[in-house]
Amino acid sequence: MESKERITALRSLMKENHIDYYFITTSDYHNSEYVDDYFKAREYMSGFTGSNGDLLIGADFAGLWTDGRYFIQAERELEGSGILLFRMGEEGVCGITEYLTEHIEQGQTLAFDGRCVSIQMGKRLEKAVEKKEAHILYEVDYIERLWKNRPSRRASQAFLLPHELCGKNQKEKLELVRTKMEKLDCSSLVLNKLDDIMWLFNLRGGDVECNPVALAYSIITQKDCFLFLQKAALTDKVKEELAASSVVLKDYDRFNEELEQIPWEGRVLLDKENSNYSIYKLVEKKAEVVLGTNPTQKLKAIKNEVELEQMKRVYLLDSLVVCRFMRWLKENVGKIPMTELSAARYMDQLRRDTEGFLDLSFPTICAYRENAAMMHYQATTKQDKEIQAEGMLLIDSGGQYMGGTTDVTRTYCLGEVTAEMKDHYTAVVVGMLRLLNGKFLYGCTGRNLDILARGPLWDMGIDYKCGTGHGIGYILNVHEGPQNIRWRFSEGMEEVILEEGMVLSNEPGVYKAGSHGIRIENIMAVKKGIKNEDGQFMEFEGLTYAPIDLQLINPDIMEKRDILNLNRYHRQVYERIAPLMTEEEKNWLQEVTKEI
Amino acid sequence: MESKERITALRSLMKENHIDYYFITTSDYHNSEYVDDYFKAREYMSGFTGSNGDLLIGADFAGLWTDGRYFIQAERELEGSGILLFRMGEEGVCGITEYLTEHIEQGQTLAFDGRCVSIQMGKRLEKAVEKKEAHILYEVDYIERLWKNRPSRRASQAFLLPHELCGKNQKEKLELVRTKMEKLDCSSLVLNKLDDIMWLFNLRGGDVECNPVALAYSIITQKDCFLFLQKAALTDKVKEELAASSVVLKDYDRFNEELEQIPWEGRVLLDKENSNYSIYKLVEKKAEVVLGTNPTQKLKAIKNEVELEQMKRVYLLDSLVVCRFMRWLKENVGKIPMTELSAARYMDQLRRDTEGFLDLSFPTICAYRENAAMMHYQATTKQDKEIQAEGMLLIDSGGQYMGGTTDVTRTYCLGEVTAEMKDHYTAVVVGMLRLLNGKFLYGCTGRNLDILARGPLWDMGIDYKCGTGHGIGYILNVHEGPQNIRWRFSEGMEEVILEEGMVLSNEPGVYKAGSHGIRIENIMAVKKGIKNEDGQFMEFEGLTYAPIDLQLINPDIMEKRDILNLNRYHRQVYERIAPLMTEEEKNWLQEVTKEI
Repeated sequence: MESKERITALRSLMKENHIDYYFITTSDYHNSEYVDDYFKAREYMSGFTGSNGDLLIGADFAGLWTDGRYFIQAERELEGSGILLFRMGEEGVCGITEYLTEHIEQGQTLAFDGRCVSIQMGKRLEKAVEKKEAHILYEVDYIERLWKNRPSRRASQAFLLPHELCGKNQKEKLELVRTKMEKLDCSSLVLNKLDDIMWLFNLRGGDVECNPVALAYSIITQKDCFLFLQKAALTDKVKEELAASSVVLKDYDRFNEELEQIPWEGRVLLDKENSNYSIYKLVEKKAEVVLGTNPTQKLKAIKNEVELEQMKRVYLLDSLVVCRFMRWLKENVGKIPMTELSAARYMDQLRRDTEGFLDLSFPTICAYRENAAMMHYQATTKQDKEIQAEGMLLIDSGGQYMGGTTDVTRTYCLGEVTAEMKDHYTAVVVGMLRLLNGKFLYGCTGRNLDILARGPLWDMGIDYKCGTGHGIGYILNVHEGPQNIRWRFSEGMEEVILEEGMVLSNEPGVYKAGSHGIRIENIMAVKKGIKNEDGQFMEFEGLTYAPIDLQLINPDIMEKRDILNLNRYHRQVYERIAPLMTEEEKNWLQEVTKEI
Repeated sequence: MESKERITALRSLMKENHIDYYFITTSDYHNSEYVDDYFKAREYMSGFTGSNGDLLIGADFAGLWTDGRYFIQAERELEGSGILLFRMGEEGVCGITEYLTEHIEQGQTLAFDGRCVSIQMGKRLEKAVEKKEAHILYEVDYIERLWKNRPSRRASQAFLLPHELCGKNQKEKLELVRTKMEKLDCSSLVLNKLDDIMWLFNLRGGDVECNPVALAYSIITQKDCFLFLQKAALTDKVKEELAASSVVLKDYDRFNEELEQIPWEGRVLLDKENSNYSIYKLVEKKAEVVLGTNPTQKLKAIKNEVELEQMKRVYLLDSLVVCRFMRWLKENVGKIPMTELSAARYMDQLRRDTEGFLDLSFPTICAYRENAAMMHYQATTKQDKEIQAEGMLLIDSGGQYMGGTTDVTRTYCLGEVTAEMKDHYTAVVVGMLRLLNGKFLYGCTGRNLDILARGPLWDMGIDYKCGTGHGIGYILNVHEGPQNIRWRFSEGMEEVILEEGMVLSNEPGVYKAGSHGIRIENIMAVKKGIKNEDGQFMEFEGLTYAPIDLQLINPDIMEKRDILNLNRYHRQVYERIAPLMTEEEKNWLQEVTKEI
């Protein structure tokens, strides 16, 4: 049992250094959604491969905390390791901080690598052990010493986006950020969120799966601007161009040391969501910390005209990919061998062959029949369902292109389906189109609008257990805040007014465990509508133009305007995509987008 | 000029007592929505009769602050008084606290009657003068000394509701309140909100216009329960029954004195919205104050089964009133002389003739043609439009009955109307019915649902500048919190999950200045719908069953389900109201509720 040996090795290191508990997460230094293999320390130590889980090692104790998605998997993977499984959310199961509060003894020491721990978690750990006057060491990285054959950290060449893709240069962006810092009465800002840094410097890289970002930190003051990158990222061109913009380049691996040495003047703004605990502690030693939101976040979320134009262009190319996939699927299903993985590969290859393609924006989800009822299903070589000419196939996919990040889901009829499936599909389409065509006053947040998409399902006594929409980055992360479309209110939740230029997904769905799953996802941009004595009206502009599967539509349960919405949408699909097609394809598209 | 003399008299009192500024509001001691004449001190001193306005008098200064609704009226009414008008909300106009900050001098004194000032306002005044180390005297009532021929304070007999109207007795309610106090770690609670006190003791009175409440205070501890009432309220029966429930009766006029003498133990909960500043200061002297929400508020908002059954019964009687008014109006308009006031009187008389009637729940709004575009229009003997057989009439009215408080608005066609008016009316009806028929998951607040009613108008580029719905009391105030249906988010706003048993209005509208106004208002109760693996669904049960005016409906702009909604609603109106009618009336009702 490998993990047993690894924990034993860790324990002897702990003992040597008088450390009683060592805490290990699954996070990089930037709270990235996708974590590279290099950072999978918890997986290495425990053997548990799920995406969420924290490991705590004591002298005679080892515990792993994970959530309901992973109970069965964790049980299997932890067998024989001596690691106790804590099923988070189950009644009577204590959390990691509660465990520490109860078990850590007077004056004992808890250690971890603070770069992989969020500020909130760090503070909760502080609180958990404070009554026992326990010590916290947050700069202890035993993983580096213990991990034999650790995968090397990704270190790709970075590149600067050409001005015609950005609309705003670094200087203009820096000025906007500094103005916002001034309003918050902060003289400095420390950035460690990768997509925020990429946005600010018009930089891109390849250090995180599906996210075209380079590992980086940045420190912005009213005078200076430091950018920390890995050596490999620094091509001559990057060095030259950044120097020309007065950006001082520094070494990524010396970030924490440099942070300690900066003579801060005034208050320092840190991202309360994404800054890591080490940054917080190192800055807090010498300066007043303001925990807030990166000024870059909202600036990045509101796409400028150049970015929107690029996205529109790229979404047409991406919609063409989806059209071609649909045609291939419908014409070949039942005739050639096809599995979830092979169909996903076909889709991915169509994207790879598209002009400007950089990467997928996330691993393609291709789920057949009942597998589609699992919202985040991923086929694997071990579990790869054969696709036949019956039931429905759900495919959720997207790409990173020079000109935008795409995300689109379609569900297709492959043969015989039930009347219930058709009704569910129709309600999902009706909801998606009602939201896409919604008009609302400026000042609305996603909470005001969620029911437009969800209402047709609620009317049927059905809900989908997720939000209706998330923000989308520009040649960046496919999930981006702060805007979203959700109905549920939670205390302390940040609610964001939908501003012109924000881009959102619109993806209602039906998930019937053991039976079928349906999701339709279009991407749309917020734009201004009419303005009159009642105020500024807002609306959406569609970016996605891929057909809805008419074989799954039951017009009898649609209202007049729903049918108008669908026919208008299909007319737009044809008008926009047909010019990119061969004659043969055009004929096919005309047929699948015909009026109902 | 009367107000000039009154201010002169006030100033000499101020001078005698070394008071530099005296602040006068329009509020009773309970922050009641309707203020009795006795409490209209600001009106007496300034001559300004608007519902909102604060008066500040200095040795050589007199200023009145009011909002946009009243600029023209205030200008007229203040002419010659020497009082400066401060137009609140206009650019460059300073608020009352800003004025004080700027003009009060070192060590000067500001005085007012703290019973008529809210905690928030009191605190803002404190803050405004603190830099100048000015003194605040909050127990100075010069109005009582100056006001010649002051209207006497209302002092009606109180009465206890019979158990069959309450569902819960005082002891049960007290227990619920005490449990909630315990959860908040508060040992005492001071109540001054009249409807909360009435609810708690199943008591009613007649001391505030349209609200069947008695002037009262109450102090609840874990052991004791004190109720302060005016002597006139205390019939033998009230005394007897309350004594039987261990309620200690005290004199309303000695409340502040008693408050000072209570030996508080533990923390004292005060209503941050409605407690007056005197209470706050007197309690704060001796105990730790917790500013929160009355535990009574939400308990009162969730109607129990007995209350709901009573409301359903009473709403049928009240809907019958509305039917009879509609018939009278339609049959007589253009034939007999009719004005806004006379039509309102006709409606009011129908209510007065109804079994169990106590009072109107608010002064009836009857607004003809363009007058209806003013949301809170009130006809007066000076301004009383003649009603003719053309255009539309809006009537918003309600009653207090033994068994419920009603509120209903209808807009009627009296003759020729434009196609635009019909479209507006239709969209309002469509929105009202969509909200009434909405299904939603438990956890939704009014913000999630507002767009169901407002959406059809937003789709036309129209908005109404108010919420869609307010809570409604039970034989209490027609406007009651905490629940509501609104779309706009404001920082610090309390958002309340819609709970089974809450009762709300549903009143979208169109207000076109100078042309027409439309509002349709139905009342509905929240109830549980189906529960399945996706959660607990919720829906509304209608209470109001008054016809929609089919002469104003344009079916061409309605969806299938909107027409179904309307026809089903009208079928329910007929089924429920016809049995209460004469044969002749039944025929009429059948005709006006016929299928479209």
